[in-house]
Amino acid sequence: MRHITLLTDFGTTDGEHTVLKGVIWRIVPGAPIADLTHDIAPQNIHQAAMVLKHTAHYFPPETVHIVVVDPGVGTARRGIAARFGDQFFVGPDNGVCTPMMERAEANGDPVEVVHLTNADYFLPNVSAIFHGRDVFSPVGGHLAAGVALAEFGPPVTDVIRYHPPRPTIDGDVIRGEVVQIDSFGNLLGTMGREEIEPLRPVTVTVGGE
Amino acid sequence: MRHITLLTDFGTTDGEHTVLKGVIWRIVPGAPIADLTHDIAPQNIHQAAMVLKHTAHYFPPETVHIVVVDPGVGTARRGIAARFGDQFFVGPDNGVCTPMMERAEANGDPVEVVHLTNADYFLPNVSAIFHGRDVFSPVGGHLAAGVALAEFGPPVTDVIRYHPPRPTIDGDVIRGEVVQIDSFGNLLGTMGREEIEPLRPVTVTVGGE
Amino acid sequence: MRHITLLTDFGTTDGEHTVLKGVIWRIVPGAPIADLTHDIAPQNIHQAAMVLKHTAHYFPPETVHIVVVDPGVGTARRGIAARFGDQFFVGPDNGVCTPMMERAEANGDPVEVVHLTNADYFLPNVSAIFHGRDVFSPVGGHLAAGVALAEFGPPVTDVIRYHPPRPTIDGDVIRGEVVQIDSFGNLLGTMGREEIEPLRPVTVTVGGE
Repeated sequence: MRHITLLTDFGTTDGEHTVLKGVIWRIVPGAPIADLTHDIAPQNIHQAAMVLKHTAHYFPPETVHIVVVDPGVGTARRGIAARFGDQFFVGPDNGVCTPMMERAEANGDPVEVVHLTNADYFLPNVSAIFHGRDVFSPVGGHLAAGVALAEFGPPVTDVIRYHPPRPTIDGDVIRGEVVQIDSFGNLLGTMGREEIEPLRPVTVTVGGE
Repeated sequence: MRHITLLTDFGTTDGEHTVLKGVIWRIVPGAPIADLTHDIAPQNIHQAAMVLKHTAHYFPPETVHIVVVDPGVGTARRGIAARFGDQFFVGPDNGVCTPMMERAEANGDPVEVVHLTNADYFLPNVSAIFHGRDVFSPVGGHLAAGVALAEFGPPVTDVIRYHPPRPTIDGDVIRGEVVQIDSFGNLLGTMGREEIEPLRPVTVTVGGE
Repeated sequence: MRHITLLTDFGTTDGEHTVLKGVIWRIVPGAPIADLTHDIAPQNIHQAAMVLKHTAHYFPPETVHIVVVDPGVGTARRGIAARFGDQFFVGPDNGVCTPMMERAEANGDPVEVVHLTNADYFLPNVSAIFHGRDVFSPVGGHLAAGVALAEFGPPVTDVIRYHPPRPTIDGDVIRGEVVQIDSFGNLLGTMGREEIEPLRPVTVTVGGE
């Protein structure tokens, strides 16, 4: 049995994040499931992508990462399942898996993506607004049970890639964005070492201060 | 081995919500346990009942839902364990299970409720204030291990039912209550579609605005 | 397979608390892991020690408690693993285990502490700042898999003990510190019943009010 993680922007108050576990356990009883986090800012694809990039590869081979940060639910955006190296991804095709996919590509690891079209692996009644429960969790459960990727639908060759806005550089001033503040007060932003290093020493201004 | 969920108003800071898992694992080592949520507003029976109603039936058959939102702890209120359809409930008899029970009744599913009187299934020393740890968790653990409901105590036929205050309707004005605000800003209230629909189009006023 | 708990000050937003589970599951697939809490105030050793003291002994025998509240990461502070009675501890040697250890000592239970020096049980590349992931989690995983304490390093006989500042008593006035406020508004402080009882009835002043 494969391990599973959940990554959403549902919060943890109303129990919807846990319904995903119920749906999964109906398919793979007792499967080990970890909550990567449910505290992604609503619909913040970039933040979720960064969390996934920094955590997924620490999990055992063939772990299934179910990601539901899904501004496009209810639109024609596709659902996908994928193998990136030795890890699996299930979620909307909105770029949330871009860093995870590009890590696998950079390492020369296998990349395989399919479009979730086979409704045999969905819940019987798919709602318009809760694909996390009705599509991605049951697909993730079946994937954890060992179903082959090709069973879920046809290959996708034009996966959507999302890259956050690059910081703007104007002479010796760089402007970027703070994506997250961790519990120790560290800021995670869109500026990387490669942009900042050449300008050292630097003065940091946040919110005008 | 049966699956287990926990639903409390303990918060997640001081570890008391996790003690429940320790107590359960002493009885059923390694049992799969999911946190429905521990972020119920303190003693808010209605909020907990709504979460339970919307989530419990997604879990595998015979999942044990342990609910500890318990304004009456330390009083003579009863502890109960119950079968509602294919799911089990353990918690105080204060109406928190009303929607779950009434769903089973409406479906014609089996309903069986017992009063927790058999102290063989409690921790050795039951505190006055922490029945979640000393009564409901060990009972839930034994239930997950397969102990029959009748072992825990005699049948209850007068389960307490809680129904939240209905919205008041005064001409074309409905007044209700907001129970919860989810992470996307959606309001969950005591007014249902059946009250609002006849008055459409409506103007919504919250907190005077 | 032994049960495992995690206790950190990482928060739950960025997924780092869950990486610990990934690292552990690579060593002991599917091991049952509970989050004691990740909401310890940053680097608050006393708060973490109190949570551990009040919760650890409810878990099954030989549960491995991995504690990462670690102001000294990056300094020469030691990492330790220990048996305190029938429970195991893994974490920095900064006094966070003092109440757990002293409970075992008071009960006459076995106490055994080793210095984590055997890098065979660490991740291959130990970072300067994330020993929770690179040292304590893999050691905890191997401990849960049944590796003997002595395998991890030599005995420690001078474990660091931390005792929080005692309340000051000046005539009939006691001054102490509030460590935590739980979700019901109860205050957990450094003053115990033994200091307060002799002065009853008392007037409580918090923040000047």
